[in-house]
Amino acid sequence: MLTYDMEKRGNTPAYRYIYSRIKNDILSGELSPKEKLPSKRSLANHLGISVVTVMSAYELLVSEGYVYTKPKSGYFVVPIKTQKQSFHSEITLPTGEKAPDFDFSGNSVSSNAFPFSVWSRLMRKVLLDYEGELLAPIPYNGAEVLREAVSKYLYHHSGMSVDPRQIIIGAGTEYLYSLIIQLVGKNKVYAVENPGYNKISKIYDMNGVKTEYVDVDGKGLSIEGLLNSNASVVHISPSHHYPTGIVMPVDRRNEILNWADENDGYIIEDDYDSEFGSIKAMNTLFGTDKNERVLYLNTFSKTIAPSMRISYLILPPHLLEKYQKKLNFLSCTVPSFEQYTLASFISEGYFERHITRMKKHYSLLKKEVMEIFEQSKIRDKISLVENTSGLHFLVKINTNKTDGKIIQELRKRGIGARFLSRYYRSNDDAPQHYMIVNYSGFDKTNLPKALEILGEII
Amino acid sequence: MLTYDMEKRGNTPAYRYIYSRIKNDILSGELSPKEKLPSKRSLANHLGISVVTVMSAYELLVSEGYVYTKPKSGYFVVPIKTQKQSFHSEITLPTGEKAPDFDFSGNSVSSNAFPFSVWSRLMRKVLLDYEGELLAPIPYNGAEVLREAVSKYLYHHSGMSVDPRQIIIGAGTEYLYSLIIQLVGKNKVYAVENPGYNKISKIYDMNGVKTEYVDVDGKGLSIEGLLNSNASVVHISPSHHYPTGIVMPVDRRNEILNWADENDGYIIEDDYDSEFGSIKAMNTLFGTDKNERVLYLNTFSKTIAPSMRISYLILPPHLLEKYQKKLNFLSCTVPSFEQYTLASFISEGYFERHITRMKKHYSLLKKEVMEIFEQSKIRDKISLVENTSGLHFLVKINTNKTDGKIIQELRKRGIGARFLSRYYRSNDDAPQHYMIVNYSGFDKTNLPKALEILGEII
Repeated sequence: MLTYDMEKRGNTPAYRYIYSRIKNDILSGELSPKEKLPSKRSLANHLGISVVTVMSAYELLVSEGYVYTKPKSGYFVVPIKTQKQSFHSEITLPTGEKAPDFDFSGNSVSSNAFPFSVWSRLMRKVLLDYEGELLAPIPYNGAEVLREAVSKYLYHHSGMSVDPRQIIIGAGTEYLYSLIIQLVGKNKVYAVENPGYNKISKIYDMNGVKTEYVDVDGKGLSIEGLLNSNASVVHISPSHHYPTGIVMPVDRRNEILNWADENDGYIIEDDYDSEFGSIKAMNTLFGTDKNERVLYLNTFSKTIAPSMRISYLILPPHLLEKYQKKLNFLSCTVPSFEQYTLASFISEGYFERHITRMKKHYSLLKKEVMEIFEQSKIRDKISLVENTSGLHFLVKINTNKTDGKIIQELRKRGIGARFLSRYYRSNDDAPQHYMIVNYSGFDKTNLPKALEILGEII
Repeated sequence: MLTYDMEKRGNTPAYRYIYSRIKNDILSGELSPKEKLPSKRSLANHLGISVVTVMSAYELLVSEGYVYTKPKSGYFVVPIKTQKQSFHSEITLPTGEKAPDFDFSGNSVSSNAFPFSVWSRLMRKVLLDYEGELLAPIPYNGAEVLREAVSKYLYHHSGMSVDPRQIIIGAGTEYLYSLIIQLVGKNKVYAVENPGYNKISKIYDMNGVKTEYVDVDGKGLSIEGLLNSNASVVHISPSHHYPTGIVMPVDRRNEILNWADENDGYIIEDDYDSEFGSIKAMNTLFGTDKNERVLYLNTFSKTIAPSMRISYLILPPHLLEKYQKKLNFLSCTVPSFEQYTLASFISEGYFERHITRMKKHYSLLKKEVMEIFEQSKIRDKISLVENTSGLHFLVKINTNKTDGKIIQELRKRGIGARFLSRYYRSNDDAPQHYMIVNYSGFDKTNLPKALEILGEII
């Protein structure tokens, strides 16, 4: 007869104690497969507990499949073939490189300029106004109020006329890239910029799509390069190329639009940082396009915060119809609360004011940062490369050391840095010694010390 | 000489007015390609404005690429080949079927039971406590506090011992499926449950992965079916199969673990609704697995709200290492604010209390809903199928009409419904006349009327 010391059960309810003891005996082999368990009454008498307690334990064992019943015959142990351990590994992760004390090329944004009190008030208002609605499922393409707010904003600030139904809200542009591939097609070749973010081609690779690198010249993506490629889709940032900062002039824009017309192609216009570009009058490619060749992408990661995972995709009508047919089963990836708060932030005019304030803030910061460079001890060994857009500039360094060597030595001294060469596909074509200065998240007070260290290294 | 009526510029700054008039003349062909513009001074005199104004307008035109300069020669029109319109479509979207007035099988959850005041307080606290940190980039795998909170919760409530580093936070399980495919491999065959959510196989299809349907028997996924398939990966919900409600017993679980061991296979354990299952003692497959064969998925969409897009993936150590190498360039898709709030909600015990309260709420609601069915006029034409888990039950309807016909006629009367047959791959094998009752979001007061209409139809 099964004998369990009921004193040892502590605070566990009696039926759970019996259940887990028997379960353990089954798993350990103490109770053999197909062995008959004692009757409820006899086990209850043996352990000095109630029949109901034993019954509860037996029923739990049955419901989980450890024990089966035969009518009028009783309870039996299910033959269970447990898994034998044959493989085991420890968690081995890179010890996680410590973040540098100072980063010339980090991707953070200034947080002190963010209107927390406004944001916080809007959040509270959303909680009060929406309440139950906050728990309801969101439409696949995002909350209507947010799409409407974005549409109005684009109309007034970029001259883009976009129906809110053309907008798809998603958790970050990386996620939206994968939706675009579903829409535009996996069997096409996608042209990406060289130099450019290698993340973009990594995501295309991940999605099983072929990419070709096309060189960027002084006007942006080279049209000859595009014509010589096998691409029928091109991913570009005409209003602000990273890392060169080139703004694509109107003739190149039209050449690319014409290329798309003539090759049944598509243009993915990645406009991620355009709000901070210095040229405001320029139309977007999407706004210029007459033949539904452009898909437009933008994000609030740069304008509000990288931790705010809200991006949007704007589709021309025929692709929108395709999206509806093919992809509307996918749930929207952004929490409703965040969408409603952002919608209020935009439609009540705070976003516009925030952008205006940040532009002033960044333009002042850029000036100050450049002055610190120009007045530093290494001023004779560097020259600053001004460009027309974005929250970064380039510093050409006069040195004999390779970019890799400089990065490595800076790293040892707790300083992060990236060079233009990193963004080229092949190191052979890559111009050397251009350090990228992403000043948007800078704490200026640490800059002189960092420049001093840079001076010792170069 | 260019003649523009300066009176007509309204509030536009003079340089912007000149800029846009010249731009329009270039685009319309009024100014020919390569035509020389008047000198700054002569145009200024002609229009009665300052030279600085004309210079600003010319420079903007140059920076955008409409005009180029030749040293010592002046400003010239860039030859621009504009896009000809050849294609245009209207936005044609399905008029968007009106949501039904009542839905037997909707996917909403009860919102009145959600502790808004607590949530709202935690949100305010997060705003105060984190402030600037809220804007900082989030680690690729999610906020550490949230991963720690989830890890502790799982330890105390599911007996799972999981290092927070093994957890990856993502915007919904659909998104996490695509990451899993990257990890486990695209060239493998994935077995999915028949019947089951067709969304799962749609997402695998979308990601270019081959799936095979394997039948579900009384114990869950059939092991013979699995052995007869070409699959080396299997996607299952052992703690709560939808829509049958089957809880996989321990012998079947071990068979599937052994199958994975013997076939170098992986098991994706989709545990999306387990918190509301009636059996608490059952270990997860992930917790039982000894050989790193199981990837575990769960979501807060069901336990908190569908609009809360937070899900998590737990990886065995060797896959975690692979993730780090291959996918850590992908940004986390969930806003930090939502992550910090949820972390507090869990670690301060509110999540546990919420689950306890919701379980009571749902168990009472289920009883009440079942009683309304049993006391309705159609009680003789239906029988309720109880099952052991989940927030739904099945109603077998005695009728001659097809499931499709019933759905169609209900729809006309403003009522939504789904039947078990919908979840089968082929309608031939599908049991007919089992209506799914997802009672979790029910407004009980509308149920009698809906049952009356159902009665008139069947």
